[in-house]
Amino acid sequence: MKIYLAGPDVFLPDAVEIGRRKAAICARRGLTGLFPLDNAVDLTAPDASLAIFKGNEAMMDAAEAIIANLTPFRGPSADAGTVYELGYMAGRGKICFAYSNDPTIYAERVARSFAVTKAERGHLIDRDALTVEDFGLPDNLMMIHTLDLRGAKLVTPRQAPADIWHDLTAFEACVALAANRAAGTSS
Amino acid sequence: MKIYLAGPDVFLPDAVEIGRRKAAICARRGLTGLFPLDNAVDLTAPDASLAIFKGNEAMMDAAEAIIANLTPFRGPSADAGTVYELGYMAGRGKICFAYSNDPTIYAERVARSFAVTKAERGHLIDRDALTVEDFGLPDNLMMIHTLDLRGAKLVTPRQAPADIWHDLTAFEACVALAANRAAGTSS
Repeated sequence: MKIYLAGPDVFLPDAVEIGRRKAAICARRGLTGLFPLDNAVDLTAPDASLAIFKGNEAMMDAAEAIIANLTPFRGPSADAGTVYELGYMAGRGKICFAYSNDPTIYAERVARSFAVTKAERGHLIDRDALTVEDFGLPDNLMMIHTLDLRGAKLVTPRQAPADIWHDLTAFEACVALAANRAAGTSS
Repeated sequence: MKIYLAGPDVFLPDAVEIGRRKAAICARRGLTGLFPLDNAVDLTAPDASLAIFKGNEAMMDAAEAIIANLTPFRGPSADAGTVYELGYMAGRGKICFAYSNDPTIYAERVARSFAVTKAERGHLIDRDALTVEDFGLPDNLMMIHTLDLRGAKLVTPRQAPADIWHDLTAFEACVALAANRAAGTSS
């Protein structure tokens, strides 16, 4: 089974090394991890961003499943590029797994960064009076439920690891789920 | 043509009214706008979030196109739920349009909120040393290029309107693009 390895990991200073570690974890389970940086792109070319897009999309089309790193990125939700890719894979009918190294629920995370209060009707709102989604889920319900229906529940640690960008324990749990699925057993 | 109207608009205090305004703009062009809140969901039910998910997915499956509101939401990128839906529609081969009421490029927006510096190799990094995508695009390249290839370039105003959550000028431009597409003319 080929698995597309989505996540803001590509933005890490040691992104290539993380990709190697993730692919090695997949290989130990008999799976093939496809990491975006495996695509050779000339970053100095004027159409570099389009080349990255096309490379990523071709990888996704070649994969049967995705493991998305939904650890919150520059705000209370997951990285936009990763979320787009999870949606794309769901739309293509692929198997969807994901993890987040932050086990906090979304409403709590928003409350940490924005002035969250209760509106007259009793629901949570932010400083712009926009509703804060409050279903006890770790991120937006579209991502959470697509995982429930198309792969497995979002994997989160009991508490955030010391290094949220390099700890691969939750990732390994996703790989185990994928390996079980590939072996035809339910998990 | 049925168009799924995605966006954090559903979180506005006057979300139902915004949905009506958007649907009316579509109707004037002979298009049918499908707004998530048109689905009747009992928000007090224990499975309310799953019911919302299923309702939104059914609406997306019924639509031929999406117009996504990618105005930045609680951070430098678009709302995660909306981004997921854009990805899903792209994966399903639907026509993709979107707008953002913030014309700033992504790297500039990140620099406003995070301590962005230049790494030794010359690229921008944030305070965690994670690369800041810097292709001169208004948001993550996956969203921007899927629009270029599957619908039209992200629509942005020359400068942000006074009320970024209620100004529908950029939305109307997307509806015009969709109407042209529905009429079979290129735009």
